[in-house]
Parts: sequence; C-alpha cells; structure tokens
Amino acid sequence: MARVSQQHLDARRRQILDGAAVCFARNGFHATSMQDVLKEADLSAGAVYRYFSGKEELIAAIVGEVLDAVREAFEGAAREDPPQPPDVLVGAVLGRTLAMKAPLTVDGEAAFPRLIVQVWAETIRNPELAATLRDGYAAVGAAWERVVVAYQDAGMMRADLPAEHVARTMIAAVQGFVAQQPLLGPAPVEVLQNGLRALMSMTPPRAADLNGSRHG
Amino acid sequence: MARVSQQHLDARRRQILDGAAVCFARNGFHATSMQDVLKEADLSAGAVYRYFSGKEELIAAIVGEVLDAVREAFEGAAREDPPQPPDVLVGAVLGRTLAMKAPLTVDGEAAFPRLIVQVWAETIRNPELAATLRDGYAAVGAAWERVVVAYQDAGMMRADLPAEHVARTMIAAVQGFVAQQPLLGPAPVEVLQNGLRALMSMTPPRAADLNGSRHG
Repeated sequence: MARVSQQHLDARRRQILDGAAVCFARNGFHATSMQDVLKEADLSAGAVYRYFSGKEELIAAIVGEVLDAVREAFEGAAREDPPQPPDVLVGAVLGRTLAMKAPLTVDGEAAFPRLIVQVWAETIRNPELAATLRDGYAAVGAAWERVVVAYQDAGMMRADLPAEHVARTMIAAVQGFVAQQPLLGPAPVEVLQNGLRALMSMTPPRAADLNGSRHG
Repeated sequence: MARVSQQHLDARRRQILDGAAVCFARNGFHATSMQDVLKEADLSAGAVYRYFSGKEELIAAIVGEVLDAVREAFEGAAREDPPQPPDVLVGAVLGRTLAMKAPLTVDGEAAFPRLIVQVWAETIRNPELAATLRDGYAAVGAAWERVVVAYQDAGMMRADLPAEHVARTMIAAVQGFVAQQPLLGPAPVEVLQNGLRALMSMTPPRAADLNGSRHG
C-alpha cells in the first residue's frame, strides 16, 4: 500500500463514486446493490471495500457530493457583480447543473438530473442529510436575496415584495426544471430562460382583450 | 364476503392506501416494508393482502393516485376562462396540491409533498410509470400552453417566445416549490405568488444603477 500514490487512490475512489452515481441515478439508492456498483465500476469487492465500508457510506458520499455541487452552482452564479438579470442568472446555474458529470449517462440521457431527484428523495427521509441541505441552502438563499435586492435597488423590480420570496421562487424554477429533465424528457436551458423572459415581459391585462379570448 | 358492502370495501382500501402513503412519504418506497404499512394502517396482513397482492401493487396504486391528483390540479387550474394571470394560476394549482391529503402528516408536516418527491424518484426508475407521467403531462402542457397563448393574444406577454417554454417554466416553478416544502421547510403559497409577481413586474435595467449597486 505504501507505494500506491495519492493520485492513484483518488482516481480509484473517483471510479467507484462515478460507478455508484450511475447505478443510483438509474435505480435509486435502495434498489441498488453493492454488486451492481462493483459491476458498473468494473472493480472487485476488495477494491471497493478498501474505500467504502458499505452502501450507506457510499450513499452518504454521493449525496454529499451532489448537494455540494448544486449549492456551489447556485452560489457561484449569484456572486457576479453587477448581478445578472433573472433569465441570465437562472440560465447560468441551470447550465452548470445540467453539465455536471456530463459523461455519465443512463439510457443515453444525462445521469446527473436523475441523481439529483434520487438525492432529494433520500434527503427527506434522512434527518442528517436534511440538516446538511438546509444549512447549505441558508447560504444560497442569502446570496440570491442579495441579487434580488440589487434588482429592487436598481428599479428593475417592484420593491414592495420580500426578496426572500423572489429568491425562493427563482430557485424553485431551477429545481423544478432539473426534475423535469428525467420526468418529462430533456429540454435545453433556453426553454427556462425563454419562459422567464416572457414572464418578465408581462403587463397588466387589458380586461376586454382577455375576456374576448376563448382558448379553452 | 357477499354481505360486505362496496362502501366498506372502499373505506378499507382507502385506509390501506392512506397508511401506505404515510409510510412511503416518511421513508420512501424501498425502505418501507409491508409490516410498516400494516402497522400504520392498523390492519392485519390478511386484511391488507385481500386488497393488494404485495408492495409492488401498493406502490403502483399510490404512484397512480398521486400522478392523477397532481395532473388534475394542473389541468383544472388551466381550464378557467378567461385564464387567470400566472401568479393566480400558479397559486391555485400549488394551493390545491399542498392541500391534498392534508390530514396525513409525517413528523408534524404535510405528507403529500414528501410523497410527490418519492413518486418522482420512483417514476424515473420505472419505465412504465414514466410513460404514464409523460402521457399525463402531454395534456397538462397543452392546457397551460393555451393559457399562455391567451396572455400573448391579450397583449399581456411578449408573443415572440414559444408558449411551450413559458408553460414548462410555470409548471417547473410549481414543481420546484412543492419539492422545497420537505427539502427546505414548509412555505405558504403566497411566497411563490409574490415571487412571480415580482418577476412579472420587471423592467429593463438602468445600467448605471445596476453598476452602482454593490451587494456582493
């Protein structure tokens, strides 16, 4: 063991985590066996158990990685100064999130959005992971609130509504769009950006016009 | 059995499904045992197996119910004529979704949003359920697109962006907000409504103002 380089150890650990990520993205955490992971990573049980004591440790490592990566995407996008408008900001974080682990696929589609939904499902049944996620979100929410306050200070957005609500809404749009990728089929970042641009373009209704339309 | 009324059979079936829904919301589908369900529903194995052959059948029944209920909430809200503006529309569907199965709770919080996230996780690993969800979404998407076209026809929204993108974005905001309830802690419908109202109020940036602000 002494002659094994740190680089080799890191690469092997990465190989295990990526194999596990594909398995978990494909089949969820609880319907995946360690045998599935060994097969996907193309490693022996001995090689894997040297790094992870078992599935629970592997789940914790994957969930931690995913939550960190997503949090960093949300925080990084909000750090730009001057802040980007909502469609650009949301496009940046969504683009970064959808590009994560892009080489890893399940049935020819990106594995990472699937993995995120599995991570959510695992997080809400595990109080420890839930606490980690909420801690991380506190920083993300604060960063996005600062962006919203900047919109309001610049006169770009009405200032009489809580910045916290706007931040949570923009984050919800990204989260929902990520979940839609595996649920409804992949869609490019531009779809969400166009949707936001259209909402941002709205003007109060001309009641007569709206009453006159019959599309139902 | 001949003297057991249909009403009794339906009530017993409901009791099993509600017990299972609480278990699945709390712990996911795969970490829940039939024993957990029997205990939660306060019924004997014999009583439960008369209605469901096993956990797989119970999962399919719960997933089907949840997908139907959510689809109906989305379609119902979009049927109003004249269509409601986005904040009202999204508020209506979110309010209906969060109120579903309100008596069922996990750790004092609504069980249904948790169950929805578990249903998503299960749906993306099961091609049959995924096909059901995508079929249902085709109708929902079409209904929401008609609403967006009505906004555009009424001059309320710029008309040069695809209605499909706007519909998908509004639906994403609702989905993300539902997922946030168990992930980040419960928030009332007004949070998302205020967020949308603020986005709908936006005007192009006054570059000098935005450059002048320093909130990072």
